[in-house]
Amino acid sequence: MRDFVKTKNTHDAILDATDKLLARYGYKKMTIDDLAREVGIGKGTIYLYFSSKEEIALTHVDRIIEHLKSRLWEIANSRYSPSNKIYQMLTDRVMYRFDSVQHYSLSINELFAQLRPKLLERRQRYFGEEASILAGVLAEGSAAAEFADNAENYAEMLVIATNSLLPYSLSTYELGSREEIYKKVTDLADLLLTGIRKR
Amino acid sequence: MRDFVKTKNTHDAILDATDKLLARYGYKKMTIDDLAREVGIGKGTIYLYFSSKEEIALTHVDRIIEHLKSRLWEIANSRYSPSNKIYQMLTDRVMYRFDSVQHYSLSINELFAQLRPKLLERRQRYFGEEASILAGVLAEGSAAAEFADNAENYAEMLVIATNSLLPYSLSTYELGSREEIYKKVTDLADLLLTGIRKR
Repeated sequence: MRDFVKTKNTHDAILDATDKLLARYGYKKMTIDDLAREVGIGKGTIYLYFSSKEEIALTHVDRIIEHLKSRLWEIANSRYSPSNKIYQMLTDRVMYRFDSVQHYSLSINELFAQLRPKLLERRQRYFGEEASILAGVLAEGSAAAEFADNAENYAEMLVIATNSLLPYSLSTYELGSREEIYKKVTDLADLLLTGIRKR
Repeated sequence: MRDFVKTKNTHDAILDATDKLLARYGYKKMTIDDLAREVGIGKGTIYLYFSSKEEIALTHVDRIIEHLKSRLWEIANSRYSPSNKIYQMLTDRVMYRFDSVQHYSLSINELFAQLRPKLLERRQRYFGEEASILAGVLAEGSAAAEFADNAENYAEMLVIATNSLLPYSLSTYELGSREEIYKKVTDLADLLLTGIRKR
């Protein structure tokens, strides 16, 4: 027994269970009891980590974005050319989110409907963080005369331009067609890079 | 009395009342009785035109898009340069929607949450129609050697790239800041046009 000692393992196990149960029941039907049973802990233990089901779901979304940010940093620090990095980062910010929610694409309408205002607020923070990683690579491209001068100013534009391909804006039908979304984001990345490159 | 004779006036008056009552009560609290009272007709008459409150709200959204499409056609048929037309059309598709829902920006979360799946389906049709108007101007720009060859292929990209600035994707806070949204869509239109222009 590790009563009242919070551990990262238990915290993460609750979020893993959330991911599974969102697929199995959807957000509305999923209960704290279900989560406790899935993790194999008491209901009271869950409340040591989270104050509500809503907070659990939002933290689950936060975790997806934390993983995504690690991937974006990895690309930013790789040895590819700035154009190549931007292309990969834009594709990844769309496809990583797509893949993260694919297994509960049928219940996602409900999740987004229930959490809409809080999710939209949070998205502002996520988008700002992604833009700042992109800005670093854009500045690198300007310095190398591969991109127009001050290309880092385009960071927010790149985020905005690809945002409508994120799961939040997709219908259930679109969430089923990975190839189509992939084609759209890569075509869009090409067009945006054409706009950013030095002439 | 014009019993059982449907008129465009009554149809439109019901939608005008919907617009007002969405601002006053929000979607959930608005009732068919409220709408009938606002228009000055019987509740039964409303059901001659629409089968449900949901259908009324969706038709209300459809009407906004019909107006928008007329404006886009007008720009497409004007005497501006292709670049100028695309710039105006992209700005208009964002700002016209913004202005159409501004007076009920506080209750819009609720409307979008309630109608989310049906609205997302409908959006596919709207976006396709807007893309086809843009494609005409893009083809005109290619023919005039102002845009790259086959620029009409970019029509869908332009729609996707500006979609995340539509009210559906904005938080209540963002829906309050017209200037910010305007700056974002115009900056984005500039970047996209740089990508499309012939080198």
